[in-house]
Amino acid sequence: MKRAKPTQFRVKYSHCDQMGLVYHVNHLEYFEWARSDWLRQNLRSYAEIEAEGYYLVMTEANLKYLKPAHYEDILEVSVKPIYWGNSRIDFDYSIMRIDDNANICIGVTRHCFTNKGGKPISMPSDLKQLLTSKPSEC
Amino acid sequence: MKRAKPTQFRVKYSHCDQMGLVYHVNHLEYFEWARSDWLRQNLRSYAEIEAEGYYLVMTEANLKYLKPAHYEDILEVSVKPIYWGNSRIDFDYSIMRIDDNANICIGVTRHCFTNKGGKPISMPSDLKQLLTSKPSEC
Amino acid sequence: MKRAKPTQFRVKYSHCDQMGLVYHVNHLEYFEWARSDWLRQNLRSYAEIEAEGYYLVMTEANLKYLKPAHYEDILEVSVKPIYWGNSRIDFDYSIMRIDDNANICIGVTRHCFTNKGGKPISMPSDLKQLLTSKPSEC
Amino acid sequence: MKRAKPTQFRVKYSHCDQMGLVYHVNHLEYFEWARSDWLRQNLRSYAEIEAEGYYLVMTEANLKYLKPAHYEDILEVSVKPIYWGNSRIDFDYSIMRIDDNANICIGVTRHCFTNKGGKPISMPSDLKQLLTSKPSEC
Repeated sequence: MKRAKPTQFRVKYSHCDQMGLVYHVNHLEYFEWARSDWLRQNLRSYAEIEAEGYYLVMTEANLKYLKPAHYEDILEVSVKPIYWGNSRIDFDYSIMRIDDNANICIGVTRHCFTNKGGKPISMPSDLKQLLTSKPSEC
Repeated sequence: MKRAKPTQFRVKYSHCDQMGLVYHVNHLEYFEWARSDWLRQNLRSYAEIEAEGYYLVMTEANLKYLKPAHYEDILEVSVKPIYWGNSRIDFDYSIMRIDDNANICIGVTRHCFTNKGGKPISMPSDLKQLLTSKPSEC
Repeated sequence: MKRAKPTQFRVKYSHCDQMGLVYHVNHLEYFEWARSDWLRQNLRSYAEIEAEGYYLVMTEANLKYLKPAHYEDILEVSVKPIYWGNSRIDFDYSIMRIDDNANICIGVTRHCFTNKGGKPISMPSDLKQLLTSKPSEC
Repeated sequence: MKRAKPTQFRVKYSHCDQMGLVYHVNHLEYFEWARSDWLRQNLRSYAEIEAEGYYLVMTEANLKYLKPAHYEDILEVSVKPIYWGNSRIDFDYSIMRIDDNANICIGVTRHCFTNKGGKPISMPSDLKQLLTSKPSEC
């Protein structure tokens, strides 16, 4: 498992609320942007995984908001898997502002692989293999 | 403190993802819809509170997703304050589907009152009074 | 075809931008909330229509923003079909603020019924029948 | 006025609806991503312009949806100003998919510069100057 290149983007106008801060719901969406990038870089795109019949359903999300972010800030989201079972996987995230290295938000999400009908199933075998291979630097 | 009338709404098309489920980020937004309704019913609108110079900034969010919700489901969100300090307040939420009483999602959010500059300040005194009054059925 | 009860809702915090106005993208989403309500009241829910294999794809949208709306405003969206062909249908919208009867936004959207593969198909026959029946007050 | 580098991004999961297509509201948001990039590349960030007291309010939007886009598509949005007056400016957009050069969506938006109170005001003088300078290739 290689260390994925962190996701970087500039905060959109639509992501800011009338306090002039990134609206708190978007941080949870930013986590997904990073999770998608991690999957694409380490395995294949989630679009392909879904087409194979695996649905990665979120079962839990925990976020701590540390500092506010603003319109036009360049943010970087790091992500890594921290725990997994047969059908379950947990990811850990950190959102940082590039300009001043400020820690904006940290969090953890828990997911379960299901089939289209919503029944838990084993994760794709190559993902399992990737996770259990000795991580060089994940 | 009276028990606020729970927030009810029909799931929008835009809230569903390509799995055909309510996209997990929206549950956190639904929490806010209920929190706003609670404030308006128990105190006054958050718009007025913000105009008075109080900003209710989110510092933590925790969600557990129990069952998927779908387009056109009628959902009900209940909310109540469960802990508070001088400038801090925690809310507890439950999202239920009206049709079959299914528990869709539960969660807790933590907030801090700040001034416009982001400095923690004491919450509005009438909110403090409301919270510390003997709750009849909150 | 009966006159559908207009869609009413309170503007959400998440819908406002850092100018303190409803962000312009949301008006287009509000149109859909009204279109969904119109379908449900006049025919059946779009969820059912989609389950029958009809996809109502947007091909054109035109919006005029007349007055800004703000957080906690109660808005009402009216909608009516104004033109239709075999697979095509145009809707006309008006967003009004309840409090002062201000006209917030007007617009028109054009849609095409397609099958799941994206090929244009005839609209559901009962919708066609509804549209061509003498409108009492649409 | 230089030709701005077009905005490129990968379609997010949250932008797709249960038809598996980019939900039509997002195209209007994509226009803004490109408009912001154009301003930053040609003048300065809209954040700074807003801090100087200029608000760029949308007064009209017109979109034509030509082909559907999907999750993980890499899209490119081009934008250029096509008409302007004292306080008004129109932008023209085109969204293209990188992979197959498919034209996804075209559109035009009209804006008015206002002060914080919503009154129309002249646009920043350096923007006026930029627009009226002989465009090399805008």
